[in-house]
Amino acid sequence: MIDFSASIAPFGMPAKVKEAVMASIDAAECYPDPDCLLLREALASRYHGRVEQYIFGNGAADLIYKTAEALRDRIRTALIIEPAFSEYERALRLSGIAVRHYETHKTGFTPTEELLRALTGGEYADVGLILLANPANPAGTIVSVSFLQELFHICRERGILLMVDECFIGFLTDAASFSMAETAVKDGEGLLVLNAFTKLYAMPGLRLGYLSGDTGLLQRIDEIGQPWAVSTPAQAAGLAALALSEESYRLPLIRYIGKERERMRCALTEAGCRVTEGKANYLFFYAGPGGLYEKCRERGLLLRDCSDFYGLSQGYYRAAVLKEEENDRLISVIREN
Amino acid sequence: MIDFSASIAPFGMPAKVKEAVMASIDAAECYPDPDCLLLREALASRYHGRVEQYIFGNGAADLIYKTAEALRDRIRTALIIEPAFSEYERALRLSGIAVRHYETHKTGFTPTEELLRALTGGEYADVGLILLANPANPAGTIVSVSFLQELFHICRERGILLMVDECFIGFLTDAASFSMAETAVKDGEGLLVLNAFTKLYAMPGLRLGYLSGDTGLLQRIDEIGQPWAVSTPAQAAGLAALALSEESYRLPLIRYIGKERERMRCALTEAGCRVTEGKANYLFFYAGPGGLYEKCRERGLLLRDCSDFYGLSQGYYRAAVLKEEENDRLISVIREN
Repeated sequence: MIDFSASIAPFGMPAKVKEAVMASIDAAECYPDPDCLLLREALASRYHGRVEQYIFGNGAADLIYKTAEALRDRIRTALIIEPAFSEYERALRLSGIAVRHYETHKTGFTPTEELLRALTGGEYADVGLILLANPANPAGTIVSVSFLQELFHICRERGILLMVDECFIGFLTDAASFSMAETAVKDGEGLLVLNAFTKLYAMPGLRLGYLSGDTGLLQRIDEIGQPWAVSTPAQAAGLAALALSEESYRLPLIRYIGKERERMRCALTEAGCRVTEGKANYLFFYAGPGGLYEKCRERGLLLRDCSDFYGLSQGYYRAAVLKEEENDRLISVIREN
Repeated sequence: MIDFSASIAPFGMPAKVKEAVMASIDAAECYPDPDCLLLREALASRYHGRVEQYIFGNGAADLIYKTAEALRDRIRTALIIEPAFSEYERALRLSGIAVRHYETHKTGFTPTEELLRALTGGEYADVGLILLANPANPAGTIVSVSFLQELFHICRERGILLMVDECFIGFLTDAASFSMAETAVKDGEGLLVLNAFTKLYAMPGLRLGYLSGDTGLLQRIDEIGQPWAVSTPAQAAGLAALALSEESYRLPLIRYIGKERERMRCALTEAGCRVTEGKANYLFFYAGPGGLYEKCRERGLLLRDCSDFYGLSQGYYRAAVLKEEENDRLISVIREN
């Protein structure tokens, strides 16, 4: 099966990351550093921040659950910008936090000024946390930094915590200009920015994610659960990934993905699918309730059927942008459909 | 520094485990199996149990925290047989569960019939969970299976959940005859048995532990936190470890450790230390408040100063049984003390 469902970078783990993991196995005979200090120093150095502005987790998902748990007795309701990763809601409910949904279905799968007006108009007075992914998942859409900054400003004025999930932001050419990573370091009170190594470095099996932002809250989140959540191989992989230069890995990768994404977008549109203008390493499209998932599966291709995402119905799919020859196979099945 | 503080098997990860980890790195480009199915099948086959009688975690510590969290709204107070691993209490308190302590200091660091009488006498009527390690840590003492069975019987009659931490039981020659692993499978209602690969297979950096016992409770515990808590390398390492024959790894290892432990015990006793009769891969002893920790540290040896364990005072230490030449170095510093 070719897996278009998980949105992992198509060429696998970078060689240097793999080498670093191999070399770390002997060190796994000791306990891992519970503080992930080298990783936090590497991030602090990259973003001109301080070590205490970063915490690491056993994958980004681990940090979503720990954040919810740290907020258990502090907030009663969270607002999720939908459609979104279903683990947000599961984590919040597990920690006794009620969930409200803000649908973007009718506005091109991206929040608009209407959200800002609703917030200032007091419509979400019970909300203590807003969760938003940028790029959105599954839609792949992005919101501008000016929108995000305005949202953050309104949130802070109203004592609402803003959590921005940037797990796919590394796939944007101009990632830095859409990211809240710098704000998290310069003025992070009330802000949490989530990121992961999973997708960009193709290491979902190693589990490594991090949070930056509000230092008081980060400290509380880091106190949830065991001290040794991040394994030795994950720490080694993350360090090697952060040491890669832009030109040696990320930029060539996203140039390739950008070209393939555009090619897939055209082919899907020609085939009659309604394709959302996505900027990440996947495409989100409506192909109608015609059983595309099953047809792809019969041909050895695994799509993400998005009908179980909040507010979506039968017929919505997400497909990762993979290697040219793999994408060709998906295109040909969709053309036949 | 030679690390006598962490009680890890002295010869490192078995070669076949290391090879399996190396071979798993490519598979880490996909998400790990959230169900750890191969591992659970391997355990079910070994103990003649069913797959649903086992769950895996990101190290045993992860499962301690998840157990506490799963019991958050179900029990109000837990009883810890002390001295014990400090994470028990930290995990319970984090989940809002009050902690009581049962001291074994005056009875050779092992619980006696007095505990059973106190339970039947209604002294712990508020307690919903009892946590006991066998072998005890840091003491290294073991309780008989008949005592454990009686304790379990009383607990079940009173609706108290019993959690037995067997993370060091693999170091006993006759591990099976002291373990509740079979009971957990045959009659596990109200019982949780915790184990880890950390110590016996020298892989603390990979993070792998498991729970067996009460299937209803296991299911609730497994629902806490993210689905992908156990990494691909950890799953591969665990499978390789379970495939090792007794003669190829465990038995020769514990014969070596047994010989060295006895040699260390004699030397420590001769040097004036009060050594507890321990059966695990470490020794627990009282050397008096003379700064032994600092003296060892100056000579490059890291002891576990046990003065921060519940009920213990200055002068108590734990030392892992390591390789002969390493143990010699510890013995010589203690003799000079």
